[in-house]
Amino acid sequence: GDEAAAAAALARQAVLTKPPGSLGRLEDLAVWLARWQGRAIPKLDRISIVVFAGNHGVAARGVSAFPIDVTAQMVANYAAGGAGINRLAETAGAALSVVPLELDRPTADFTKAPAMDEADFLAAVSAGYEAVSPENDLLAVGEMGIGNTTAAAALCAALLGGGAGRWVGRGTGVDDHGLARKRDAVEAGLARHGAKVADPLAIAAALGGRELAAMMGATLAARRHGVPMLLDGYVASAAVLPLSRLSTDALAHCRAAHCSAEPGHKALLSALGLPPLLDVGMRLGEATGAAVAMLLVRAAVSCHAGMATFAEAGVAEKTS
Amino acid sequence: GDEAAAAAALARQAVLTKPPGSLGRLEDLAVWLARWQGRAIPKLDRISIVVFAGNHGVAARGVSAFPIDVTAQMVANYAAGGAGINRLAETAGAALSVVPLELDRPTADFTKAPAMDEADFLAAVSAGYEAVSPENDLLAVGEMGIGNTTAAAALCAALLGGGAGRWVGRGTGVDDHGLARKRDAVEAGLARHGAKVADPLAIAAALGGRELAAMMGATLAARRHGVPMLLDGYVASAAVLPLSRLSTDALAHCRAAHCSAEPGHKALLSALGLPPLLDVGMRLGEATGAAVAMLLVRAAVSCHAGMATFAEAGVAEKTS
Repeated sequence: GDEAAAAAALARQAVLTKPPGSLGRLEDLAVWLARWQGRAIPKLDRISIVVFAGNHGVAARGVSAFPIDVTAQMVANYAAGGAGINRLAETAGAALSVVPLELDRPTADFTKAPAMDEADFLAAVSAGYEAVSPENDLLAVGEMGIGNTTAAAALCAALLGGGAGRWVGRGTGVDDHGLARKRDAVEAGLARHGAKVADPLAIAAALGGRELAAMMGATLAARRHGVPMLLDGYVASAAVLPLSRLSTDALAHCRAAHCSAEPGHKALLSALGLPPLLDVGMRLGEATGAAVAMLLVRAAVSCHAGMATFAEAGVAEKTS
Repeated sequence: GDEAAAAAALARQAVLTKPPGSLGRLEDLAVWLARWQGRAIPKLDRISIVVFAGNHGVAARGVSAFPIDVTAQMVANYAAGGAGINRLAETAGAALSVVPLELDRPTADFTKAPAMDEADFLAAVSAGYEAVSPENDLLAVGEMGIGNTTAAAALCAALLGGGAGRWVGRGTGVDDHGLARKRDAVEAGLARHGAKVADPLAIAAALGGRELAAMMGATLAARRHGVPMLLDGYVASAAVLPLSRLSTDALAHCRAAHCSAEPGHKALLSALGLPPLLDVGMRLGEATGAAVAMLLVRAAVSCHAGMATFAEAGVAEKTS
């Protein structure tokens, strides 16, 4: 991050025609963008959203309310422009790209074997890394993958503890039986792979999925290129949890877009040290929460770049 | 409200390509707009923001961090396009109008006399009512008025109880001495006018202000014309509190845009039965919180109007 640019942005916020601090987190967003873009007045000319899609062996255990075919069907829906993220990316003025990751070759069922071997895991991380353009002013990544809230819960349970019950939720809307199967699957995954917990990347390979690994790779690329990034929901946040275990400031370029209705997300964001911008009960994934938060970022930059200062406007400053 | 339009909107939400309910409050917003616009797929072609400005006799008691001249200076800043609401209205695609209300004739100091007599109060209510076009698809109102968080706190204390301490905050950023003066002013206002509590409109005249009365009038006009409305921050919410005391569903066409950093706002919204859409520490007034929430409403309508249904997209529906 560029501390001089951040300091200049902070100084500008102090003289804009408003009580100091009165734009709340919009002020923080402007300073955060300034820090990572390296300019006192950040731009939002190139905003990108990348959605990664993957399939999960564990889905065969009946952990989702939807059949596994829906992953590919939704990828077709993205191409046709009919999904939530299509509409929200347009509203946010963001370029949307979708990266399907070997959908006809699901990961292994993690209750029986590691979800990915090292080669598969690295290929997915690399696909995510390559999907990020260094030219972006702001990035969000998201996911689609039937069964992936089970993978996310398993990652959280392995790396943060507390047992499956703390991290398993209804995802797309599974019933009570499905919820029990989901909990059982996570417990079985922990029993099989929990010994690898000292190696967060091994846990990511064993319990995660290709789209989670790709989101991790994209996060590394954004950090490498100094691109500020909005984290989406529960699965996207779980995907970067291994990075935060490796380095305490690995996510310094990230802000959490929203707190999902998925019950484990609040505790996960707290563990990541990232308070959410929004808490509006969304749980759709596909970067939809991040796209909505991009609207707040646009509002923040609009004020930061375009408001008059007290001197420019001839408005008296604070007297007490 | 048009319950048939609301039911049609709800039915549409259930077949869009997403897990049912997964857009959270964005789904509620679409149904709410449908109900008040009377169409299953609401429009946002005409969005308006009206900012009312007024001056307060109680400001002479040193209750604000800014001098009273700032009210008129900020009205000039709105005309020049330099204020936060100018930038945020542009970002939201909203038409902005500003209505100054006799700025060179402040209300009376409510510690000594009613802030407004009946004629002044009704003139301000009427100015607010007339400022609302029936053609609006969505409306927000806001305020500017040095000293008006003191008036807002006095209204809340009178109508909701709990004493001045529960409702007085730092407003634009008053210091500890100013905060004490603010509390004293509210206590003195309660002592002088508290006996009128059975008549919420008399309380509004005695403890409120012209811009608060105008926001009340605008809210009545929006309800009369079936225009859905976003409430802004602490002062705007306090302005409509008398209406909610007169009729339990007077604010059914309203949603609370955000929870202000002003400490009394959370309890006030709870008393109004209106959970906020945003909670990002804003406390600027001038409808800025409502303008940011308009971005969420745009996101909601974009999804509601533009997403494909399961049948249109050939995506399998929920199985369990």
